[in-house]
Amino acid sequence: MSDIKKVVLAYSGGLDTSVILKWLQDTYQCEIVTFTADLGQGEEVEPARTKAQALGVKEIYIDDLREEFVRDFVFPMFRANTIYEGEYLLGTSIARPLIAKRLVEIANETGADAISHGATGKGNDQVRFELGAYALKPGVKVIAPWREWDLLSREKLLAYAEQHNIPIERHGKKSPYSMDANLLHISYEGGVLEDTWSEHEEEMWRWSVSPENAPNTPTYIELTYRKGDIVAIDGVDMSPAQVLTYLNKVGGDNGIGRVDIVENRYVGMKARGCYETPGGTIMLKAHRAIESITLDREVMHLKDELMPKYATMIYNGYWWSPERHMMQAMIDASQANVNGVVRLKLYKGNIMVVGRKSDDSLFDAAVATFEDDAGAYDQQDAEGFIKLNALRLRIAASKGRNLL
Amino acid sequence: MSDIKKVVLAYSGGLDTSVILKWLQDTYQCEIVTFTADLGQGEEVEPARTKAQALGVKEIYIDDLREEFVRDFVFPMFRANTIYEGEYLLGTSIARPLIAKRLVEIANETGADAISHGATGKGNDQVRFELGAYALKPGVKVIAPWREWDLLSREKLLAYAEQHNIPIERHGKKSPYSMDANLLHISYEGGVLEDTWSEHEEEMWRWSVSPENAPNTPTYIELTYRKGDIVAIDGVDMSPAQVLTYLNKVGGDNGIGRVDIVENRYVGMKARGCYETPGGTIMLKAHRAIESITLDREVMHLKDELMPKYATMIYNGYWWSPERHMMQAMIDASQANVNGVVRLKLYKGNIMVVGRKSDDSLFDAAVATFEDDAGAYDQQDAEGFIKLNALRLRIAASKGRNLL
Amino acid sequence: MSDIKKVVLAYSGGLDTSVILKWLQDTYQCEIVTFTADLGQGEEVEPARTKAQALGVKEIYIDDLREEFVRDFVFPMFRANTIYEGEYLLGTSIARPLIAKRLVEIANETGADAISHGATGKGNDQVRFELGAYALKPGVKVIAPWREWDLLSREKLLAYAEQHNIPIERHGKKSPYSMDANLLHISYEGGVLEDTWSEHEEEMWRWSVSPENAPNTPTYIELTYRKGDIVAIDGVDMSPAQVLTYLNKVGGDNGIGRVDIVENRYVGMKARGCYETPGGTIMLKAHRAIESITLDREVMHLKDELMPKYATMIYNGYWWSPERHMMQAMIDASQANVNGVVRLKLYKGNIMVVGRKSDDSLFDAAVATFEDDAGAYDQQDAEGFIKLNALRLRIAASKGRNLL
Amino acid sequence: MSDIKKVVLAYSGGLDTSVILKWLQDTYQCEIVTFTADLGQGEEVEPARTKAQALGVKEIYIDDLREEFVRDFVFPMFRANTIYEGEYLLGTSIARPLIAKRLVEIANETGADAISHGATGKGNDQVRFELGAYALKPGVKVIAPWREWDLLSREKLLAYAEQHNIPIERHGKKSPYSMDANLLHISYEGGVLEDTWSEHEEEMWRWSVSPENAPNTPTYIELTYRKGDIVAIDGVDMSPAQVLTYLNKVGGDNGIGRVDIVENRYVGMKARGCYETPGGTIMLKAHRAIESITLDREVMHLKDELMPKYATMIYNGYWWSPERHMMQAMIDASQANVNGVVRLKLYKGNIMVVGRKSDDSLFDAAVATFEDDAGAYDQQDAEGFIKLNALRLRIAASKGRNLL
Repeated sequence: MSDIKKVVLAYSGGLDTSVILKWLQDTYQCEIVTFTADLGQGEEVEPARTKAQALGVKEIYIDDLREEFVRDFVFPMFRANTIYEGEYLLGTSIARPLIAKRLVEIANETGADAISHGATGKGNDQVRFELGAYALKPGVKVIAPWREWDLLSREKLLAYAEQHNIPIERHGKKSPYSMDANLLHISYEGGVLEDTWSEHEEEMWRWSVSPENAPNTPTYIELTYRKGDIVAIDGVDMSPAQVLTYLNKVGGDNGIGRVDIVENRYVGMKARGCYETPGGTIMLKAHRAIESITLDREVMHLKDELMPKYATMIYNGYWWSPERHMMQAMIDASQANVNGVVRLKLYKGNIMVVGRKSDDSLFDAAVATFEDDAGAYDQQDAEGFIKLNALRLRIAASKGRNLL
Repeated sequence: MSDIKKVVLAYSGGLDTSVILKWLQDTYQCEIVTFTADLGQGEEVEPARTKAQALGVKEIYIDDLREEFVRDFVFPMFRANTIYEGEYLLGTSIARPLIAKRLVEIANETGADAISHGATGKGNDQVRFELGAYALKPGVKVIAPWREWDLLSREKLLAYAEQHNIPIERHGKKSPYSMDANLLHISYEGGVLEDTWSEHEEEMWRWSVSPENAPNTPTYIELTYRKGDIVAIDGVDMSPAQVLTYLNKVGGDNGIGRVDIVENRYVGMKARGCYETPGGTIMLKAHRAIESITLDREVMHLKDELMPKYATMIYNGYWWSPERHMMQAMIDASQANVNGVVRLKLYKGNIMVVGRKSDDSLFDAAVATFEDDAGAYDQQDAEGFIKLNALRLRIAASKGRNLL
Repeated sequence: MSDIKKVVLAYSGGLDTSVILKWLQDTYQCEIVTFTADLGQGEEVEPARTKAQALGVKEIYIDDLREEFVRDFVFPMFRANTIYEGEYLLGTSIARPLIAKRLVEIANETGADAISHGATGKGNDQVRFELGAYALKPGVKVIAPWREWDLLSREKLLAYAEQHNIPIERHGKKSPYSMDANLLHISYEGGVLEDTWSEHEEEMWRWSVSPENAPNTPTYIELTYRKGDIVAIDGVDMSPAQVLTYLNKVGGDNGIGRVDIVENRYVGMKARGCYETPGGTIMLKAHRAIESITLDREVMHLKDELMPKYATMIYNGYWWSPERHMMQAMIDASQANVNGVVRLKLYKGNIMVVGRKSDDSLFDAAVATFEDDAGAYDQQDAEGFIKLNALRLRIAASKGRNLL
Repeated sequence: MSDIKKVVLAYSGGLDTSVILKWLQDTYQCEIVTFTADLGQGEEVEPARTKAQALGVKEIYIDDLREEFVRDFVFPMFRANTIYEGEYLLGTSIARPLIAKRLVEIANETGADAISHGATGKGNDQVRFELGAYALKPGVKVIAPWREWDLLSREKLLAYAEQHNIPIERHGKKSPYSMDANLLHISYEGGVLEDTWSEHEEEMWRWSVSPENAPNTPTYIELTYRKGDIVAIDGVDMSPAQVLTYLNKVGGDNGIGRVDIVENRYVGMKARGCYETPGGTIMLKAHRAIESITLDREVMHLKDELMPKYATMIYNGYWWSPERHMMQAMIDASQANVNGVVRLKLYKGNIMVVGRKSDDSLFDAAVATFEDDAGAYDQQDAEGFIKLNALRLRIAASKGRNLL
């Protein structure tokens, strides 16, 4: 293990990654560079500096990545109406490639030969971090302490911390859930959720009020799209992170965005998770609405057919892969005319689309109307259309094939 | 036109199809057989008998198809979590093949050589009726009056009715919407909906209360699945139509199942529709939940990838086609173990899954747990898993490919 | 019919389109603009000028489109290894959008309000011409004489020609086949081919020798690729049309590229066709070979999964559609590193890849070797890789699922 | 390692697996059960008995699996026209699940707790064996000596053999290639093939003559299909293994079925392989031909779109998986009417389809004809068909979208 000279550690400043920091120093006798990112998780990142310094770290990176996160990861993903297994908006998955990218960049800047993270050996996150790191720096060494050490229970971890004078914050009681948060979502796993029949507890949720506790009057908002991304809300221009921050607020206030699901992990097991994604839930609904008037039918159907594969790529950790880039090229090409405004009514957990308009709308009222269309559409054409579409079926039936 | 001897007409008993009946008699000088189906649209079907008799019809079919509709059409479709363009639960689309099948059966029984329907030349329904009829009776003649006659405005239609003594019901004012209903849904098109920016009117909706007007306390229900279909609710066995009737009631009471969308018709234009699908909306959510614990990951992903194509088949009218049968064979094969119970909380438009259990559950708490798993899963395996999954990316990167 | 003022006619100079020219003049009392293209069909195009002049045409377009055809249509299509129904290299299909584009351009230049073509009402070509024309000039009027007139037999056509002094070339006997040719292929339909059990006749083929008559010694060639396209043969730089011309020659000389198939037309029937595609057959094989060392695995698999849909788009006439553009964006993005050289052995109908090399090769001999790899690959990683990939199967089996 | 009591070894009787046998006995101090299968590899299997006995094995299984192999594995696979990465007919891949199944069955019969095989840690076969074994017997222990021991060079292996008195056959010189054979194919890897630019050597091939050395006169054969499988050749009923044996002979005699490719392994690297698949190559071509007249267009296209995914499942070792079963259900459903006869001309490496006929043919000469069709098809229908298919494109273009 003596060949590792410097490790960049994804460091939150919490107990787990502080123990990892110390353990890495002891085990590998190497220098540590800490990297702490503000991805909108809602916690201060600056305290990580003092903690790292206290552990003797000399190279400390603390980055505000919120704009980059939403602009280059969240928004591109939402252009595809991406959802994993019909329910999960990929809040954790989409943040990992950005962290992997920064770990590699910092390793390159600081001359580190390894990276390390605090993800366990059972989850998807180890895969996402490491696939990203290997793709961007193929010779990098990855240290995943949870797969290596023997501090596998909370007790051992605490004992190790005390033994090495790592401060343990004791304000408030420890949440029974394993949580992850960033601007897109907050997730909960573990605890009572490990029984799929147990109802989640109301007090678990942190970002949103329940529908029951949401206001009794609806909120209307208008989202302006340019090339598939939201650029303004209620007429006010906003940056990507501002958009998502705003939508999280208004969504959370209206009880929007909670799900309780069982999902299939890439490492092979099923796991239950609860997620709050207020802004993302609004974005998914609204993006479909603006596409509904601006996207060609076949383009939309092709996107819909490919979406599950794209979602799985992201879920499994292949953001930094040639197949994701290839698919993104197609998705982005589809968004050239996805411009316009969507009007939504938010009310106690519900999102109702109540209007959509666009200079690029393909909706043609003259053709669609139930009233006289003044010749915009010749109903006679339908007969030939149906006849030729039926031809293969008629031939089959006339030759004795039973299509019942 | 003299070669038509007998026509089976899909007859609702309403003004439009009564005019069609008369027009067919006059134009084709042929016998008419009427076919009226109870698909759960919520209107009496018996009155159609008297009306048809009044117009001289001798062969009158009035069928209660509710069980067949749900059992053989709605349930098989929901096994695939089918949804068109991300929003539409195909309420109208899935009823058409059953009507087409009955029209053909009745034509065969009565020796009719033609069928007729009241769908317009701009919509999808003409396609669905006619593709179905041609597939099941390739030599059938189809008469689509709306594509042939010149009664293209409401005024002309009314004039024709008066002229021919067809009674026009004048109770209540005519709805401004074109509507279609069956046990799965009720739809609204036309009127103010033809402007995509106009908000739909609250008084338009007929089946559900608004979330605002739904009860202030949640309703919990438990749905029992066998092979992907619901067979009991809250422990009470129910037939397919009973299931859907019950879910429509409880869903509608809780403000569930409204959407307002712009969709792409098969005949080439975009059209706006509003839909109430209370029971179907619950079924979609619940079916995903029971699948989440009973379905293999790759089976689920394959289903998800194919679903949009399957939905499009149904939307476009290809229920009675070899490709739909082929795909159904796969979908049905996937449902062998989709057994168990899903518990839902319904509240003001929201459906929250709060529990799912199954003797066929693939959820393995021992493997998934965040606690000590007693060796059920070897975290060391993850390293090799990641390393080999990363190999192609590392080789690419080491040969100079930029994966950023 | 008096509203047509000027028609651009796709004019070959042959009997059929000469009759059409005259018929259009008589029927529509309008001006005709002729458009004749050299797409490499192997016939002189200049004679069309005199013939058109003889019929009183004043605006005559004769274009050499060979380079544009191969560069902008054939090459992009081959980047996807495109093949329809496993056998057909789309030789006719890919030429039609170029003709449609030119018809529209000429209509715009000459102020014509209509276009016309000589494709019949049973084939795919009418669809391809007209979809292209409508997509590029939505208000254009299309005249398809074969769907309108009553000259439906060869006798009537000849009678019409004689009656109107249209010269009928009588040199040689009329081929029993309906043929179409361009730089990519020549096709044969009709005649004895209408019986699917009849063997095609050896004398039918025009472009290639039979394998039996090909040389007894093999020919080796080396194809150089840049971004997925061939840019040189045996080290000599060539333009796209030169490449295809050369490969047709060497392929045809070696008995390469004949197929005899039954295909499914877009208009709903099955049809038998024989095709000679010497150069294209070589290009397909060679392109797969260069991709085999330069393309990432998942990119290749994604391309393979999407290819049938892309092929169908082209076959059905949707080259000028947003979905084809969207898919092309993805295909082209995949070709950035498809550079290198493929070496082929051609012999009596066979194409054998005997070598491929590239500066962008992802083949890593050190990793792939059966010999000692000096640590390039850790065989231990395979265990974890397999274990986690097997996990979902093991859980399923341990819970009683039978996977036999 | 003391917990292993009995191991079932996939035993060829050759040097490698004999060394493994001895090594397992020594290392694990356990009983060995040998399993040797005749899959049509063309070598005697009985000698394995004596060799195993000489090494003290008491439970020896020698099975002739040829019929099961072709009937339950090869034929189902060919129903899908399966081909991996456009070139590879999966000859090795499709044999592995059968061996895995037998290993598990024998383990169950003999009370063994482990299985072992001689596949290396770099290849796909380890994955295929082990995924299959884990899927069918989730608690089985797998021993893969090549990933465990240190006998990683040929020299060490030979030394170990001599040291333990394992007889080394020295007749003839050792092939420089790693080979695998069964009734479907023989494969070659390693040696000069590790340089992708080197031409393979003519003397490498073992099963087929070269096209150069094939007869100068063609061979015609007729293959009779029932439900997608060949049941007779030239009118003579044959069992599945007889069919493939016959086609290998006639194909090999005519120089058919050689490919030289670079493929992407599941474990992440590219590898070059040469394959001889004479019978399989004929079967692929012929199956497409019989499908071309008996399969519905959309069924065929759906099969084509899904085939690459199905091929990858088999290549990667997921034959015994729910997703493969699910897809097989669909594939098999498609073959109900794939009956009839295909006539082929074989000549010096070429397979030309020269006829196909079926009582279930969907080819309708009356509709397809270029001659007068007596009203079987109304050319007027094409106009409406095209117009409505063009509608979305026209609307887009009329609203300013550029589709060029």
